[in-house]
Amino acid sequence: MAKEGADMTEETEFMIDKNVGKGLENVESSGNAKEMRAVILAGFGGLNKLKVTKKAMPEPQDGEVKIRVKACGLNFLDLMVRQGTVDNPPKPPLVPGFECSGIVESLGESTKGFEIGDRVMAFVNYNAWAEVVCTPVDFVYKMPDEMTFAEAAAFSLNFVAAYMMLFEVASLREGMSVLVHSAGGGVVSLCPGQAVAQLCSTVPNVTVFGIASCFKHAAIRDSVTHLFDRNVDYIQEVKKICPEGVDVVLDCLCGENTGKGLSLLKPLGTYILYGASNMVTGETKSFFSFAKSWWQVEKVNPIKLYEENKVIAGFSLLNLLFKQGRCSLVKSVMDKLLCLYEQKKIKPVVDSLWALEEVKEAMQRIHDRGNIGKLILDVEKSPTPLMASDSTETSEAGEEEEEPEGDNDSKERMPFIH
Amino acid sequence: MAKEGADMTEETEFMIDKNVGKGLENVESSGNAKEMRAVILAGFGGLNKLKVTKKAMPEPQDGEVKIRVKACGLNFLDLMVRQGTVDNPPKPPLVPGFECSGIVESLGESTKGFEIGDRVMAFVNYNAWAEVVCTPVDFVYKMPDEMTFAEAAAFSLNFVAAYMMLFEVASLREGMSVLVHSAGGGVVSLCPGQAVAQLCSTVPNVTVFGIASCFKHAAIRDSVTHLFDRNVDYIQEVKKICPEGVDVVLDCLCGENTGKGLSLLKPLGTYILYGASNMVTGETKSFFSFAKSWWQVEKVNPIKLYEENKVIAGFSLLNLLFKQGRCSLVKSVMDKLLCLYEQKKIKPVVDSLWALEEVKEAMQRIHDRGNIGKLILDVEKSPTPLMASDSTETSEAGEEEEEPEGDNDSKERMPFIH
Repeated sequence: MAKEGADMTEETEFMIDKNVGKGLENVESSGNAKEMRAVILAGFGGLNKLKVTKKAMPEPQDGEVKIRVKACGLNFLDLMVRQGTVDNPPKPPLVPGFECSGIVESLGESTKGFEIGDRVMAFVNYNAWAEVVCTPVDFVYKMPDEMTFAEAAAFSLNFVAAYMMLFEVASLREGMSVLVHSAGGGVVSLCPGQAVAQLCSTVPNVTVFGIASCFKHAAIRDSVTHLFDRNVDYIQEVKKICPEGVDVVLDCLCGENTGKGLSLLKPLGTYILYGASNMVTGETKSFFSFAKSWWQVEKVNPIKLYEENKVIAGFSLLNLLFKQGRCSLVKSVMDKLLCLYEQKKIKPVVDSLWALEEVKEAMQRIHDRGNIGKLILDVEKSPTPLMASDSTETSEAGEEEEEPEGDNDSKERMPFIH
Repeated sequence: MAKEGADMTEETEFMIDKNVGKGLENVESSGNAKEMRAVILAGFGGLNKLKVTKKAMPEPQDGEVKIRVKACGLNFLDLMVRQGTVDNPPKPPLVPGFECSGIVESLGESTKGFEIGDRVMAFVNYNAWAEVVCTPVDFVYKMPDEMTFAEAAAFSLNFVAAYMMLFEVASLREGMSVLVHSAGGGVVSLCPGQAVAQLCSTVPNVTVFGIASCFKHAAIRDSVTHLFDRNVDYIQEVKKICPEGVDVVLDCLCGENTGKGLSLLKPLGTYILYGASNMVTGETKSFFSFAKSWWQVEKVNPIKLYEENKVIAGFSLLNLLFKQGRCSLVKSVMDKLLCLYEQKKIKPVVDSLWALEEVKEAMQRIHDRGNIGKLILDVEKSPTPLMASDSTETSEAGEEEEEPEGDNDSKERMPFIH
């Protein structure tokens, strides 16, 4: 992105912030064609800090792509953003969301590689949960024809993160064993256990140990080799099967689990921390519990790693993309993943679809770890619950959605599990 | 090794310990054919704890190979053993030494894969610095015909450790960059910078940054891409060339350097700690300085690794072999290395050859970091300094060695650098 373009983007954002801060009602009632619906986080805190409102529509800067959004991914990380527990969050009000899918609406100056009308999926450094998104062309990827928008919004972060951890960080090879926490989720932080399990199945003879809540076991039993309840002493159970330990531990939990994870590794095994979801303890951020989690994280003595021949890695895809400029590496990973998708070796799992206005309920569902697969914000959907019985169909059924059966309207909107 | 065999080994060792403890003169004068010369460490401490004496010759147990030793490797780790600063050292008196080369003299029951007379190199869990060594067959490898015994004794630990760190732990690939401390040494701990540099040159377009004492620069300049003095602010210098950092840092120093090493990594880069030579601070072990080093080692917060996308690994080849049973993996690595040796892509560098009786001077030389390449104990050499101008010739020239010129006998034996 040219320097001029970057400066202009900042200016635009500043104007939007001012709008959000003081003149929302005015903006909402103006009916201006240059406006769009977006989820706004007014300040860090509980669910009540989220609302859908109108704001000025962004225009693509030099090197950017403007996307008419169809679907957005909702990740555990978004809960952490809401609570303000991520590293250096932008100052609210802000539009959350890091990934979306949609149709290219226009291109910034000197933006190459896309045509208006292309179906794309994209990473966005915040601002994804809106009807329109602008993001640098390096973060945009063409969708395969057979992929739905909901699938695409469920695909990028989960599969790229899982792939990079397994193959770039841990060098997964034939015959290895992998332990993954929250095996059921599209849940935790960025990387769902299900993307990990699917990618492991592309390598011969890989054993996958999944740790998940009991109620998810029926749904995910087929995708992992061994499945344990998150409340049992899984260390003991895994060691019964692999006395030597496992080759890779993927841990999204952090805190006291770091030591447990390391103790489960074989010599030359790799422990990867890819999230810190234990830090989200209640609906609102408790600074005390956050600080406590941070300090309670077991520090690792390098000499212990030396004696035990162990590897510990951290992985944050968003930092890699937005702070560390690794978009060409991520692009090459995305190419490999889309190959695997087209060969039908991997397929994103959608838990449920939600209107922008249902973002609070969707977040609560992630917080409660109720989901199996990814939660999707369907931008064109009206705020009623929808059974995501088949992601391929439902993802584009936003326009023609059906009234769900039963007494759901009388409850707090309850999502359905397919 | 069968249980019975193991028991017999223990008994034998117990008898030897008793000999060392009280009846050495008797044993030395007996001229018994079942005795051999060996370096004995009588207790942990300074150089004066080392002496050459006779002790009972070991016999191969079930699954072991008995080797008539020609040459032994002397590693920085042996200094740490002498000082008692390794993890769980055996109780002295003990025979130090972890690697040797020689000729197969006999085979234990059920030992397969070798013939009497085979030229071999071997790992030994202590006891290498002797005329005869017995070690399990899994730790023994046939030497290529063109390899000398001195080269073989300089080969195993250094190249296996370097290979496993670069390719098993760090997945070195085309275009990557590697920083190695003590680039000149066969010195530090197990893995000399020179083995690392040679192995890096087998991958296209790898940049090697070496950190070494100034006086070694002339000798090693050709083997690395960029060379820095260990006393300059190499962090700054490396960042001038690679502002993003490097892909792999191999650190044998530990202590305050862990943080420095991590700060030099690119995102997704790997820091490998493979030794702790800063712990050896003087001739004798200072428990205080040892404990201080241990506690001063910067503990690593996994959340920092997560934010920065970094990997930290520990690597101890001896633990891998002798505590963690990874001999088949090491065997496969050795096969690859011997291929590279036969293709003349790698070649061990011998610094100098020493008689068993010169072990103190040799250790002092390692302690002073005076060596470029590996120090070898040449079992058949008499205690006079020998110019290791060509390892290929000198290694087997023990029997016909020449009196060195000049006044060397009037000094403390001074090694020559070739």
